[in-house]
Amino acid sequence: MQANKRDVLNRLATIEGHLKGIRRMVDEDQYCVDILKQTYAVERAIKKLESVLLQGHLSGCVQERLLPDRGQDTIRELADIFEISRR
Amino acid sequence: MQANKRDVLNRLATIEGHLKGIRRMVDEDQYCVDILKQTYAVERAIKKLESVLLQGHLSGCVQERLLPDRGQDTIRELADIFEISRR
Amino acid sequence: MQANKRDVLNRLATIEGHLKGIRRMVDEDQYCVDILKQTYAVERAIKKLESVLLQGHLSGCVQERLLPDRGQDTIRELADIFEISRR
Amino acid sequence: MQANKRDVLNRLATIEGHLKGIRRMVDEDQYCVDILKQTYAVERAIKKLESVLLQGHLSGCVQERLLPDRGQDTIRELADIFEISRR
Repeated sequence: MQANKRDVLNRLATIEGHLKGIRRMVDEDQYCVDILKQTYAVERAIKKLESVLLQGHLSGCVQERLLPDRGQDTIRELADIFEISRR
Repeated sequence: MQANKRDVLNRLATIEGHLKGIRRMVDEDQYCVDILKQTYAVERAIKKLESVLLQGHLSGCVQERLLPDRGQDTIRELADIFEISRR
Repeated sequence: MQANKRDVLNRLATIEGHLKGIRRMVDEDQYCVDILKQTYAVERAIKKLESVLLQGHLSGCVQERLLPDRGQDTIRELADIFEISRR
Repeated sequence: MQANKRDVLNRLATIEGHLKGIRRMVDEDQYCVDILKQTYAVERAIKKLESVLLQGHLSGCVQERLLPDRGQDTIRELADIFEISRR
């Protein structure tokens, strides 16, 4: 769980840095298509962060509420379904 | 479960009918933007179908693998997360 | 334009066939997660079809409304932006 | 264009503030589902920012490259398609 927390905090810091870079581009009136491409990159980084958070929720909170013999399969299936649905 | 099955089959029939209509539009060389808007409508209908299927999976298969006292909340949370993630 | 039309009609036929297969799975009460994965595959096929239609719109209708010397770059940029936004 | 720039900078500042709030939630080990819902809200805010940037690109750069009599319609159609495709 601590590894997951550190990973999440690192991702948040990276995204915040990326946004500051985008703010600079807007301030300097850079080409709008270049700015747009950077915001798409931030969007993808947030989606990846959401996957990490969801995976943490499934293998943490949800796992411990499942009947012991069915936990692993159910978690894996739910993680699969969520991942595929976001592609 | 049977109600859910009928709902799913109805949705599939509607989507197939919609696609036939799109095929006719393409055959008749209708304006590409009008065709594109219809394909987006089909995409939304499929996403709604996926929500119905996921809800069926959660309140069916997943529910019965959860510890009795935690089932309802966990299912509701997962359905919420999934819905929000697709908006 | 005719090549594009044939491609679009082929994609529509494939998607309709895929949906019939899903209907059979539902009729036979197959496992809901397997059905859901097939609907995601259909969703991806429709998104690909939308890309083809949009590309046709850009390099057809939009192209001919652009000033001659700026057409290619503008079309390419718009196609890029749309593609990236759907990933 | 300046109004658009101010709007974009305001949106970026709001998103950065939101991310700082999420970092605090992670630091304080708040419930993962609550954190996840906040990241989805940030994702939606970034998508809205992208719409604003795209609209600026269309009515700025693309507009001036279009033949005078076709500009408005073409821009409106492209903006429509983009909005619908992201719903």
